[in-house]
Amino acid sequence: MTKTDAAQLTADLIRCASVTPEEGGALVLLEKQLSDAGFDCTRVDRGDVSNLFARWGRKGDSKTFGFNGHTDVVPIGDAAAWTVDPFGAEIKDGIMYGRGATDMKSGVAAFAAAAIDLVSNTPPEGAIILTITGDEEGDAIDGTTALLDYMSTEQERMSVCLVGEPTCPNEMGEMMKIGRRGSMTAYFTFTGKQGHSAYPHRANNPLPVMARLMDQFSSEALDNGTDHFDASTLAVVTMDTGNPATNVIPAECRATVNIRFNDSHSGASLTDWMQAKVDTISAESGVGIDMKVTISGESFITPPGALSELVANSVEAETGRRPELSTSGGTSDARFVQHHCPVVEFGLVGKTMHQVDEQVPVEQIHQLKDIYSRILRDYFA
Amino acid sequence: MTKTDAAQLTADLIRCASVTPEEGGALVLLEKQLSDAGFDCTRVDRGDVSNLFARWGRKGDSKTFGFNGHTDVVPIGDAAAWTVDPFGAEIKDGIMYGRGATDMKSGVAAFAAAAIDLVSNTPPEGAIILTITGDEEGDAIDGTTALLDYMSTEQERMSVCLVGEPTCPNEMGEMMKIGRRGSMTAYFTFTGKQGHSAYPHRANNPLPVMARLMDQFSSEALDNGTDHFDASTLAVVTMDTGNPATNVIPAECRATVNIRFNDSHSGASLTDWMQAKVDTISAESGVGIDMKVTISGESFITPPGALSELVANSVEAETGRRPELSTSGGTSDARFVQHHCPVVEFGLVGKTMHQVDEQVPVEQIHQLKDIYSRILRDYFA
Repeated sequence: MTKTDAAQLTADLIRCASVTPEEGGALVLLEKQLSDAGFDCTRVDRGDVSNLFARWGRKGDSKTFGFNGHTDVVPIGDAAAWTVDPFGAEIKDGIMYGRGATDMKSGVAAFAAAAIDLVSNTPPEGAIILTITGDEEGDAIDGTTALLDYMSTEQERMSVCLVGEPTCPNEMGEMMKIGRRGSMTAYFTFTGKQGHSAYPHRANNPLPVMARLMDQFSSEALDNGTDHFDASTLAVVTMDTGNPATNVIPAECRATVNIRFNDSHSGASLTDWMQAKVDTISAESGVGIDMKVTISGESFITPPGALSELVANSVEAETGRRPELSTSGGTSDARFVQHHCPVVEFGLVGKTMHQVDEQVPVEQIHQLKDIYSRILRDYFA
Repeated sequence: MTKTDAAQLTADLIRCASVTPEEGGALVLLEKQLSDAGFDCTRVDRGDVSNLFARWGRKGDSKTFGFNGHTDVVPIGDAAAWTVDPFGAEIKDGIMYGRGATDMKSGVAAFAAAAIDLVSNTPPEGAIILTITGDEEGDAIDGTTALLDYMSTEQERMSVCLVGEPTCPNEMGEMMKIGRRGSMTAYFTFTGKQGHSAYPHRANNPLPVMARLMDQFSSEALDNGTDHFDASTLAVVTMDTGNPATNVIPAECRATVNIRFNDSHSGASLTDWMQAKVDTISAESGVGIDMKVTISGESFITPPGALSELVANSVEAETGRRPELSTSGGTSDARFVQHHCPVVEFGLVGKTMHQVDEQVPVEQIHQLKDIYSRILRDYFA
């Protein structure tokens, strides 16, 4: 009987230095293991990004369970701040350390191991598709999107999909995601008139205008949440001038705002909301305000139903905790998958993701594989 | 008969790139010309700053007229925004361009030329002292202060002093200064808690706190002016974060505020006013706010009298305009000289000071020299 060690596979993946967009050997490794287990594997590379499509079972089977994940990781940041080799997968006191330990090489390892074991030991009536990308942490233009484009061309289809991103804030099993808030970023440039600090009436200082606009943005609640969503949030992430001279009023300053929004807004409605404030304050002050908006993703939801029940039941059976159906948090590739089929997300505790000494208890990797295995068994039962 | 060309001397000085604290050859040039005319010159250098003391006539003469000025200039800012060489002293249509054209190489050139011509052609009964510093635009710690310290040690004394800073807002002759507002700068550092933009409740963003405090500072009038003083002014001069990541809420940001204040305030009272706002907003937000204050000078005044009459009469005789006795504008080294002797200020139209394409009509340089010459003649008459 095949029993794939998900922790060993996680360690092997961590040792592949796959900082976006480097493949780092991670997809090659997975392709080998999945092919050996009978998966039909195709590398779907686009731009400078590598992706892996793997299917077991019949193409177009009406009962096809999908998993989605990524092997790329964010940069390690300050190398000196790590107490371990970020690509060493060192285990101390039952904890495995390394970039990607939680986000999300463990998740990929767990679902790959669960799928391999199922098809090897008790081949199900149906199919399993794994879509694994090397560009989730970067621009995500040639990642899961490329895989979905490939599937569309090849008439490959998942009936449902589970994304293995970390979803639990503190305790294993406490939360799964059934949707995500939208995300957008607005870049502001304020242009006034330079002058001498002693003669402010001869200048037009853009800084108080920036301060007022950012205060207005920060003071107003966007909403109080909706049925399935937390309240939308707005974060001013940077305000910059770069004026070293205390006797000079600068001509220009810049600010950036990041918004995570629920289904009571859209990227367009929030752009209008900001533009109205910009227009008012620009007219009042005479300071020019240029706003450029990038919408990373609109909000979306897979309403509670069969798929969320399946996942929640399995999580509860394995952990004793019934996961909250949440839509909180950042974006993930579920925003692309939702256009293809119903999608939910469940994975590990994400506390240390993107941080130094990113880490995962080895036991939780095994537990996550057990959860994914049970989901597959129940789905095909 | 000696007739020193003040415009030529201004051009020669502009071509010395004397951005604070660089001497740039400007003081060397002046020392040469003044020595040649019989002035007793001493370089009074302190720290990384160069200064020039020059006296014609007897040390300790009870009738000693003083001039004060500076040859250092502020940085050129965005070089690409200039339409001329900032250190070229190019003349187009009777206008001379360059950094320092009004602030205040023309002023120094005009009083040096006036003094040289007077002592060369009609030596007065009395003495003339020129104090010229290379650090007025910077910290001003080792500039005029160093010259006054030197004079104190050497028992050199001016009976009265005229500072040649630009004083006219729009038209030549319309304004002189009999005092100055005080000046202070407050440096703020805001410390919150870093986090992910998608989870603002887990972070404590210092940026909205900075925005609110700067908006409060900018929105409140400090006063409505006093008998001899305009209203006090406050300028936010920079706000900085330096966070390139839109998905990260930064831990820290910084702002700087410059205040020019009249005799209804002191550096201490305004420090208290700011600290109260800081304490309130810090307590409300949980964001730490560190405030460091530098008081460049308290407000001061040389009450209207003999000296202001002498200068105003000469200005009126040469320009047809009776100058307003003002205390408006930025600090100048008169704030140091006032501890030594009665001091007033008169100079050119300051409209383009510190700006790109700083400029001066050549004719006004000659007119300024004529005014300074008449002041000297009348003083010694």
